[in-house]
Amino acid sequence: MGSAWEAAVAAVVPVDEKARRAALERHDRLAKPPGALGQVEAVGAALAAMAGGGAEPPFPAPAVALLAAADHGVVASGVSAWPQAVTAAMVRTIVSGRAASSAFARQVGAELVVVDVGVADPLEDLDEGPRFRRRKVAPGTADFNVGPALTPAQVAAALDVGASLAADAVASGHRLVVVGEMGIGNTTAAAAVLAALTGRPAGDVTGAGAGEPSAGIAHKVQVVEAGVARLGPAPRPLDVLAEVGGLEIAALAGVLVGAAAARAPVLLDGVITLAAAVVAARVVPAAAGYWLAAHRPVEPGGVVALEALGLEPVLDLGLRLGEGTGALLAVPLVQAAARLLTEMATLDEVAGPR
Amino acid sequence: MGSAWEAAVAAVVPVDEKARRAALERHDRLAKPPGALGQVEAVGAALAAMAGGGAEPPFPAPAVALLAAADHGVVASGVSAWPQAVTAAMVRTIVSGRAASSAFARQVGAELVVVDVGVADPLEDLDEGPRFRRRKVAPGTADFNVGPALTPAQVAAALDVGASLAADAVASGHRLVVVGEMGIGNTTAAAAVLAALTGRPAGDVTGAGAGEPSAGIAHKVQVVEAGVARLGPAPRPLDVLAEVGGLEIAALAGVLVGAAAARAPVLLDGVITLAAAVVAARVVPAAAGYWLAAHRPVEPGGVVALEALGLEPVLDLGLRLGEGTGALLAVPLVQAAARLLTEMATLDEVAGPR
Repeated sequence: MGSAWEAAVAAVVPVDEKARRAALERHDRLAKPPGALGQVEAVGAALAAMAGGGAEPPFPAPAVALLAAADHGVVASGVSAWPQAVTAAMVRTIVSGRAASSAFARQVGAELVVVDVGVADPLEDLDEGPRFRRRKVAPGTADFNVGPALTPAQVAAALDVGASLAADAVASGHRLVVVGEMGIGNTTAAAAVLAALTGRPAGDVTGAGAGEPSAGIAHKVQVVEAGVARLGPAPRPLDVLAEVGGLEIAALAGVLVGAAAARAPVLLDGVITLAAAVVAARVVPAAAGYWLAAHRPVEPGGVVALEALGLEPVLDLGLRLGEGTGALLAVPLVQAAARLLTEMATLDEVAGPR
Repeated sequence: MGSAWEAAVAAVVPVDEKARRAALERHDRLAKPPGALGQVEAVGAALAAMAGGGAEPPFPAPAVALLAAADHGVVASGVSAWPQAVTAAMVRTIVSGRAASSAFARQVGAELVVVDVGVADPLEDLDEGPRFRRRKVAPGTADFNVGPALTPAQVAAALDVGASLAADAVASGHRLVVVGEMGIGNTTAAAAVLAALTGRPAGDVTGAGAGEPSAGIAHKVQVVEAGVARLGPAPRPLDVLAEVGGLEIAALAGVLVGAAAARAPVLLDGVITLAAAVVAARVVPAAAGYWLAAHRPVEPGGVVALEALGLEPVLDLGLRLGEGTGALLAVPLVQAAARLLTEMATLDEVAGPR
């Protein structure tokens, strides 16, 4: 059996810039002043480029939100305000339909799937089903404050989980992929991944995450520095995942490339998903053309990642929850952007004889 | 028969600040870090305050978008890039379901109603129905570059149209009112209303509107100055509507107070609706508690109006179309904000024994 990740990497084709231009030109002929719908016009043109062909993109629905969940050994080093058990508790809450992401998914008509790719708790009480997939690669990472978080084989397995999930989601008819995550300690891993790949100092990409870390933010920065220091200059992206990453970050990188391989638009969420995007874009630069930034995260690493990816988010609501919440909120905007290009009259039609 | 406007003005009660605090406190007990959903939490608390009572607001659906359409005599003074006939053409396009607002209304599940409160064209080809209401007070305003735009009686009639529409919308079961407009020349009227009521120079509130005016922006500023100069210092809000306003601006002020009187949440759109809000807030300050700002308009007067109203918009997408488009895009955000307070588990429930 070949690797789903490797197959996805090989299958990505660049988005269709001719279709993007055609969509922008169509926007200038629609019944409104040219450019009057600002960023919504740019999103519509991006959808046309992802689909390829013409100015009118397919409607990006139904949407599926893939939330990767995993634990982080680095919480032993005092980087989180919350105990590790919260990861499993929140997975159960999401599966039960009572999390913030559950409420938002219902609002925007998205299917919500939690994938256990590395939660410490066995989660044996949860049944595999439409809301929960059991794809545990390991019960969490090792503490990257003292050594590598993952083995190369674990990274490869998590990338495969993600690429397979994305392929399955598109095969089952989904036309918009929302990504999100759950994992206590994962803003520390995301900060380390971003520092290692962008070259920015740890202090520039490290924030409070889900709350003031138990041992303080200065300590969190030191932990990030310790992990990054072992990598040396210009490390390879998958080596970064192994040294300081996380199983959900690797799985999300797999989802992002898998969706791009299937030409499915993706909505990115906060700093964890953005760190996964920076990793995936280093491996397959063309894949980034299929990703849209949903919101500007509070977490400083998220803003650095948006800059590295050259993406402009559609929302800026002061969000710092994760769980795909910001990406879910942007689903109606993306769908509305597609409708403009397919449902609106042109100026010629409006001004024509009656 | 009493005036619907006067009845609405008398019926407005302040929003319930105790309910707002209860909602914010509930947010701090939900299964997420306190404040992690940023502005969405504030919107949910505002909905609770509008409904009154407790921390859990009623679900703000179904939504109705009331788009007031009217023409402006001031287009004779060269303030618009578009001919007056575009107002009627766009009303027909909206009614036919092929405008930008039509596409967005379908996306967010809102009913879309265009109200002719002052279109120059008789629009006899349009049938009164769920998508179109014939409430023409006059076939447009007089050119305020040379004299008053409206008579006091016309202002009163338009305020009544709006207040009645809002009352009917709530009586027929709508629980979220979206406002919008269509009217060539109306950014000039809105700029004059805002300059007169905020005391800001015409140059601060005057922009390109739907496109570079035929006689240039500097001329548009002069026209605004000419109208405002006749009002003198600290004019009364309804005198401002008569001197430099518009029939759709007056009708929208009526909608805003009518909705507040019925304790229905309102989503404001761009500069025209924001100018109507500034007028309405001067007449009934308590009504402003029922209004939410959907987006930050490109038009400079819109930003001045947001400041005057003390409102923080949820979207910033570079929109300058009007038609209620920005307000429609914010509908899912407002509905999602309500869901958080009613559908999420508390931290106690998540951490409790299983």
